[in-house]
Amino acid sequence: MLIKDARFVLTPNGLLENKDILIKGNKIKSIGKTDKSGRVIDASNLAVMPGLINMHTHASMNLFRGISDDKKLQKWLQEDIWPLEEKLDGDKCYSGAMHAFLEMIRTGTTCFNDMYFYMDKVAEAAEEIGIRGNLGYGMIDLGDNSTDKQLKKTQRTIKRLKGDFSDRISPTVAPHSCETCSDELLRKAKSISDKNGIPLHMHLGETHKEVEKLLKEKGKRPVEHLKELGILDSGFIGAHGVHLTDEDIKILGKSNANIVHNPCSNMKLASGISPVPKMMKKKLNVCLGTDGAASNNNLDMFEEMKLTGLLHKLNSSDPTTMPVENILKLPGTNAGNALDQRIGKIEENNLADIVLVDLSDINMNPLHNLKSNLIYSGAKVVTSIIDGEIVMKEGKFTKIDEADVKRKFTEAAEEIVS
Amino acid sequence: MLIKDARFVLTPNGLLENKDILIKGNKIKSIGKTDKSGRVIDASNLAVMPGLINMHTHASMNLFRGISDDKKLQKWLQEDIWPLEEKLDGDKCYSGAMHAFLEMIRTGTTCFNDMYFYMDKVAEAAEEIGIRGNLGYGMIDLGDNSTDKQLKKTQRTIKRLKGDFSDRISPTVAPHSCETCSDELLRKAKSISDKNGIPLHMHLGETHKEVEKLLKEKGKRPVEHLKELGILDSGFIGAHGVHLTDEDIKILGKSNANIVHNPCSNMKLASGISPVPKMMKKKLNVCLGTDGAASNNNLDMFEEMKLTGLLHKLNSSDPTTMPVENILKLPGTNAGNALDQRIGKIEENNLADIVLVDLSDINMNPLHNLKSNLIYSGAKVVTSIIDGEIVMKEGKFTKIDEADVKRKFTEAAEEIVS
Repeated sequence: MLIKDARFVLTPNGLLENKDILIKGNKIKSIGKTDKSGRVIDASNLAVMPGLINMHTHASMNLFRGISDDKKLQKWLQEDIWPLEEKLDGDKCYSGAMHAFLEMIRTGTTCFNDMYFYMDKVAEAAEEIGIRGNLGYGMIDLGDNSTDKQLKKTQRTIKRLKGDFSDRISPTVAPHSCETCSDELLRKAKSISDKNGIPLHMHLGETHKEVEKLLKEKGKRPVEHLKELGILDSGFIGAHGVHLTDEDIKILGKSNANIVHNPCSNMKLASGISPVPKMMKKKLNVCLGTDGAASNNNLDMFEEMKLTGLLHKLNSSDPTTMPVENILKLPGTNAGNALDQRIGKIEENNLADIVLVDLSDINMNPLHNLKSNLIYSGAKVVTSIIDGEIVMKEGKFTKIDEADVKRKFTEAAEEIVS
Repeated sequence: MLIKDARFVLTPNGLLENKDILIKGNKIKSIGKTDKSGRVIDASNLAVMPGLINMHTHASMNLFRGISDDKKLQKWLQEDIWPLEEKLDGDKCYSGAMHAFLEMIRTGTTCFNDMYFYMDKVAEAAEEIGIRGNLGYGMIDLGDNSTDKQLKKTQRTIKRLKGDFSDRISPTVAPHSCETCSDELLRKAKSISDKNGIPLHMHLGETHKEVEKLLKEKGKRPVEHLKELGILDSGFIGAHGVHLTDEDIKILGKSNANIVHNPCSNMKLASGISPVPKMMKKKLNVCLGTDGAASNNNLDMFEEMKLTGLLHKLNSSDPTTMPVENILKLPGTNAGNALDQRIGKIEENNLADIVLVDLSDINMNPLHNLKSNLIYSGAKVVTSIIDGEIVMKEGKFTKIDEADVKRKFTEAAEEIVS
């Protein structure tokens, strides 16, 4: 496949103009003018950028979008979300996730990192639509002594995801949080992640309450606690990272741990502001995520990039904070690093996860500053390539029937509230 | 014209289901089932809502989108925006504004309140595309003693806008701010606005620096200063309202003045947070605006509504702050009140400024909560009716040639940076 005459190409070495990108199999073979032919995409009025990587989400929660707004986090969870989650089953999670993938692909996401239930069904949906995914069964054992059961479920999920799916689907180990998991679960989760060489993905410091609980029960902040349990290393992916002290940041930095910023969810649930500029200054690997659609309420990573800029400029009282180049790293190279996968940047030999943005769209003009327009003005993704395959072409999904996905999704969402 | 079988209609009395909306001339004639026929729009899978009103913008600044980001406000103005504004002329402002109107209409805005230069040309563009507009020539006299010249320009603009255009085009008086206008200019501006019975639109308390300057030079805060000059009343529209004390809010409330919240611009330029929930509790009439595309960088009022919710939930550490009903008032009934026009709500005898939202779109599902989806998930406006006339039908502009607008706009934007 050849992306021909691309007007702009976003690469780690800057913005290239008028280039061809040759894709062979699932990889980027070359960037530069070529005489090779093949299946050609005319990109003379398109910008070529790496597919965005959503590093913390709960795809199936699309079923709950809008179901509970304007509530405090604990009420939101206890009165609405948790009781509704009791009604979930594999088929519903499949339908919810498939709908989430429509939304992700349409808004430029080509890879996601998910923690939830029925992850084999979520993987089935991802496989069918062609999106790349990292999936972990969300383990909670505090309150019900289900430690062994939870770990077994994780091991079963890992086995299935490794055995029955393409290389696009990767397992993770996903204990929910320090607040909801026993020390034993956390330690054993880490050993499963080490044994399998896969990331450990959990919530970290999302709420003030989580920190208070740990301090009260263990006399330690969550980060200190995780350090002592031996859980922090370059395979650690901590979502939210709102309530972190300077000492926490130091520990996370020394451990080469990864943090995922979720500005929209943190604002909507009034959780607080993650110290992202400070963490980036300390060379922490910060990524970006949407969280689930129940607390956002969408999965648009372009919007999340814009919010990242707005929030940290405001919070620092300094409009020079978080320049566009820094923001673009979060869902790009930093996410690729956290997952240890060759994605997130357009570079020879990297996997061909690429999205094409319409430069003739109203909001992309004038074209004084492409990067700024992508982040702040509103970009329209027309075509998406994942693993060398076109999964959306000129707005149409190529591998699934959009109307059918929507119909099944609506049925599942209605059953949940009925 | 008949909007038939609307699945949902957003009215001040709540959400109606399965209704017909009959439009006669430029007005809403009836809401409810009817046997009348006419030009029919099938709305069985659409939501009908009042067109959004953008109460503070500078449309022609679309020419500058992305040209200067990640800079401090004074640098942004002095190094980039002001020198570029020197290059503007009537034709360029026309092209910039027309492009802004494409963007506004596509994202559900049917009426705007603008302050800038060459407002007769901006009015021409508005008239051609069919959008409703309130336009004031932005007066600045401090530093160049141009008081009389500025006032004359305003009077000429008012005369032209009243004489040569349809009722959709209304003039305003627009002194730039306390920081850039002499007392004499402000007093005389107020008298012009009184004489003509039109609103006075100005910036108010956007930056800390503005307040400091007034305190230093006059020993008064901007709001106190305006009160003493006799400028505050129900015809006053103050944009931004970031740096306001409790005493300021009290004065504004007693005067029945209107404030326009611009969350995106205030975040991006790190200006601060307007005390919107507090003002609304004190019954102030708060509206919503995007500011210009140079500091946003788009004109999407749906995005502005979402930011309003996110920002004030975060700022109050309380996710119950700014529930969806309150947010919807800002670009709706409150804006109609501020302009003293029968717009901003779907009600019999109101002007027919109505937008239709596609309920089959990915982001609008599931439909657990329409209002939440409209604000937080991302709404796709398919058809826009202004003054009883369809200006966009299924995404296509009916009165202008989109490609031609884009071509002229690109030329103008390129000339400015050349």
